[in-house]
Amino acid sequence: MSLVIVGSLALDTIEAPAGSVSDVPGGSTSYCSLAASYFTNPHIVGVVGEDFPDSVIALFKDHHINLEGLVVEPGKTFRWGGRYAKNLDDRTTLFTDLNVFETFDPILPETYRNASHVLLANIHPGLQHKVLDQLESEAFIVLDTMNLWIETAGDELMTLIKRVNMLVINDEEARMLTGERNYGKAAQKLKEMGPEWIVIKKGQHGALLFHENQVFTVPGLILDEVRDPTGAGDTFVGALIGYLTQSRDHSFDNIKLAVVFGSVLASFCVVDFSVDGITYLEKADLDERYDEFVIMSQF
Amino acid sequence: MSLVIVGSLALDTIEAPAGSVSDVPGGSTSYCSLAASYFTNPHIVGVVGEDFPDSVIALFKDHHINLEGLVVEPGKTFRWGGRYAKNLDDRTTLFTDLNVFETFDPILPETYRNASHVLLANIHPGLQHKVLDQLESEAFIVLDTMNLWIETAGDELMTLIKRVNMLVINDEEARMLTGERNYGKAAQKLKEMGPEWIVIKKGQHGALLFHENQVFTVPGLILDEVRDPTGAGDTFVGALIGYLTQSRDHSFDNIKLAVVFGSVLASFCVVDFSVDGITYLEKADLDERYDEFVIMSQF
Repeated sequence: MSLVIVGSLALDTIEAPAGSVSDVPGGSTSYCSLAASYFTNPHIVGVVGEDFPDSVIALFKDHHINLEGLVVEPGKTFRWGGRYAKNLDDRTTLFTDLNVFETFDPILPETYRNASHVLLANIHPGLQHKVLDQLESEAFIVLDTMNLWIETAGDELMTLIKRVNMLVINDEEARMLTGERNYGKAAQKLKEMGPEWIVIKKGQHGALLFHENQVFTVPGLILDEVRDPTGAGDTFVGALIGYLTQSRDHSFDNIKLAVVFGSVLASFCVVDFSVDGITYLEKADLDERYDEFVIMSQF
Repeated sequence: MSLVIVGSLALDTIEAPAGSVSDVPGGSTSYCSLAASYFTNPHIVGVVGEDFPDSVIALFKDHHINLEGLVVEPGKTFRWGGRYAKNLDDRTTLFTDLNVFETFDPILPETYRNASHVLLANIHPGLQHKVLDQLESEAFIVLDTMNLWIETAGDELMTLIKRVNMLVINDEEARMLTGERNYGKAAQKLKEMGPEWIVIKKGQHGALLFHENQVFTVPGLILDEVRDPTGAGDTFVGALIGYLTQSRDHSFDNIKLAVVFGSVLASFCVVDFSVDGITYLEKADLDERYDEFVIMSQF
């Protein structure tokens, strides 16, 4: 069983109340693949420029991330800058320099095309379609997206949603796509668009999983300090599909656990800048954090 | 073991997207005592005018609510009117006619003074102090309050908070009292003000229970339709203390269950206007709803 992740690779500049960092690893694929690497060996497809640091490549390799689908193009890596308000909920984009990412054309190496699980991490829905077109297997497909694509590529997104098994979006995006503020009604409409599984992320309030007539909720962990929320959603979905790839079990009970492990990794992500919170974690760290979720939610 | 509830009794006028009602039972005590009545026989202290409907008195009696502390004064019952916005989150107060409630002086009948549990439902903190002054027992005391008293009677509220075992407030009130947006930090500051137990209600996102270094979270149930959110918080705290009075167990594990049953009753409250959702429920209704919370949150 193998997991393919296709998304963006970037170098981020982040300004937050707790501090600032420049040219640190970012993009959906960085977070997704590092999070997934605690459960399986992810195979990534992406593009970076010649300036992409060797140290980040080494980090990916240390995490047993397969880089056969990583292309290095002449030019600069995609760069993104953002500034968080004091409440950490509001974020302003400072700049988006696509650089080599502007002409990204995801090509799956032959060895990737029989993947059992595919994560369409957050990139343009047109590119996400291209990834699915290259698959030669019946994979379990998870789709992540964002408000930008709902606004600017709605038609492509709607045909894409029909092709996936699970849609993972946040509460605002769910409202944009369905016009419903009620989570149950929004999830019902989203299921009618195609996916059997819907996950609605609610930030610090946790996440909801919908399947058939069932609902499961995982709480947000109470953290003393959140330093950088960037990539929390990518980390969540990366760990979720990593857990599914390893466990090969798409029952409701097992997908509940995948959602819990998504939350476990996301809770590590936000306490440090960039991907620093989710590198080189030990199994004991994950087990301990999992136990905190158990204590917090089991009665 | 016996439970005393002191709060307001009112006749409400409610305008909501799903409809409008006039002169229906309201006030914190109505919701709290009906919710508690599923677990114990609550003893209420309150004042109404001569116009308070016999049918509501009969409803209270049917629910085995002890009315020895209920005073009927010449004049009109407290009336409150509110209008909900389409999202149901925003509420405008249309009028507040205190009437006989303006001179309410809570007197505990002799038989109430050895209560094992006391719920200081939402009224002015000065009156809540008076209730505690009349107790002759070491009761477990739960305090509910609101933003109005934080703003207008802050000093009295702060001395009151020192005298109670559990404080139940919503997230906005927690922020007002502590200046903290982080739930963990807010709860820590609230515990330092006196109460061993802190409950922070998060509306549709459920509630958080804090005690020593432990945290528990109960999710909000996903409901197809919310018709009237009035009294959901009162219902929650009423069921919570009703459950505690019956079970006589103040362990963390048992108070977790009290919080779950608080959420069970609150989930019935909001689907109908006024107290209609929480009258004449059967044990099977509560058990079935409890099971929904189990399915939704246990993994």
